[in-house]
Amino acid sequence: MIGMHAVLNGALISAAEATVPVTDRAVQYGFSTYESIRVVGGHPVHLSDHLLRLQKSCEGIGLVHPFSSAQIERWVGALIAADAISDATIRIQLYGGDHPMLFILASAMLTYPEQYYRDGVGATTYRGERLIPSCKTGNLLLNYMALADANRRGNFEALLVDRHGHILEGTRSNFFAFRDGVLYTARDGEVLLGITREQVIRAAAKLSIPVVYEAVQVEDLFAGLYDELFISATSMAAMPLSRVDGMSFLGSYRRTLAIKDLVRSWEMGEGQ
Amino acid sequence: MIGMHAVLNGALISAAEATVPVTDRAVQYGFSTYESIRVVGGHPVHLSDHLLRLQKSCEGIGLVHPFSSAQIERWVGALIAADAISDATIRIQLYGGDHPMLFILASAMLTYPEQYYRDGVGATTYRGERLIPSCKTGNLLLNYMALADANRRGNFEALLVDRHGHILEGTRSNFFAFRDGVLYTARDGEVLLGITREQVIRAAAKLSIPVVYEAVQVEDLFAGLYDELFISATSMAAMPLSRVDGMSFLGSYRRTLAIKDLVRSWEMGEGQ
Repeated sequence: MIGMHAVLNGALISAAEATVPVTDRAVQYGFSTYESIRVVGGHPVHLSDHLLRLQKSCEGIGLVHPFSSAQIERWVGALIAADAISDATIRIQLYGGDHPMLFILASAMLTYPEQYYRDGVGATTYRGERLIPSCKTGNLLLNYMALADANRRGNFEALLVDRHGHILEGTRSNFFAFRDGVLYTARDGEVLLGITREQVIRAAAKLSIPVVYEAVQVEDLFAGLYDELFISATSMAAMPLSRVDGMSFLGSYRRTLAIKDLVRSWEMGEGQ
Repeated sequence: MIGMHAVLNGALISAAEATVPVTDRAVQYGFSTYESIRVVGGHPVHLSDHLLRLQKSCEGIGLVHPFSSAQIERWVGALIAADAISDATIRIQLYGGDHPMLFILASAMLTYPEQYYRDGVGATTYRGERLIPSCKTGNLLLNYMALADANRRGNFEALLVDRHGHILEGTRSNFFAFRDGVLYTARDGEVLLGITREQVIRAAAKLSIPVVYEAVQVEDLFAGLYDELFISATSMAAMPLSRVDGMSFLGSYRRTLAIKDLVRSWEMGEGQ
């Protein structure tokens, strides 16, 4: 059963034992990295990509640990077997410091109602810049506050806007926008290199949609230069945005949903 | 004995039980605030100031919790009594979210060798800006990385330099520098409002040293415009800097040590 067990540094433990001391410096400082992975039909989707990114996140913040990707892959497999997991979301949470702790945790697969894809979801904008954009770390207060602000105002996601007025990414997603048939997204160095972002770009190519790596200016968005927006994440694939702050972007989301369907179909294919 | 017990939401627990679930969102996102307090002769120094700042940190990040300062003060007293604490460092660690968790933890008092005060300590500079400078939160990756970099190069502290070249503060301290007999430190809004920083400014007034709230430009420091530097923190009072990066600031540290002695004497006085 999902959530019965967890893994700590390779050892199977009960999920209730997946705790950390409040006195641990890596815990107090958020000196940690993480990954969220979809498990579909017992298969962890794009696992090697996630483990590569985990390693890059560690390198980016100087988090030294003794765990190889091959080891972690085996441990993920062991947890899937131990709890007889078919569909789930798995989180790898790695704390650094003198005694690195790598947890693998499974929970019910994070999914969203079909209605979200049909009607789109709302987003707000929030000013702020992540410390090291390319790394998935525990330094997430900005993301927490931005999303809390969005939720309070009845929205699904917050879009982070940098000092230059660029919309870079969501708090847990990458951001894409169509303009004159071209799909825009921020440059690699500016944002988290989403595993699903890569799949979205691959799907766009398949659908003959040109992609330009150039962050959307928030004033251009509100000036009406873009006509279809979506966010991407492991849990969402591609999720259409029906509005940003006060501005509506309602539509059929034809291109977004075509991209979403392709991305999801590849997950299935990988699992077979 | 220090470190036998801890307090969680008012209940005395064994220190080993002071753990948090890895799955807790506030833990994962660093949605937390904290304070470090010196206990001298069984008396928690400037406790009401620390509790006021804790509350301001919570307000600054929207962390809602049900604990009053009066309650927390009682719990600190209960921990001091339970473990018969004379001298110690107490940490209050508060996680937000749906189920706020407030821990009070005691450890051996953090002190530094007398030699550090006589000879001064080394610091490096590190480019980076804290997210919400006035709040003490769990969003500390920058501080962790900057200090790790300083330690690796044999230094005691890293000084954080913002995009404008201003030296704002250390990773766990405030920063002060003398120029033509005047003491410079960054403006209130730019840095953590250190409890000890306030005492340093009070001591400077007592010693007839004028204080100017203006951050030191890193190029002015290296151009030799400043002749005595120190950092302040609860654990350090005022600690002289003997060098920054390659540049030496050796001296007798007469003014710094006079400030330090005054700050420490007031702690004792408060305890009596």
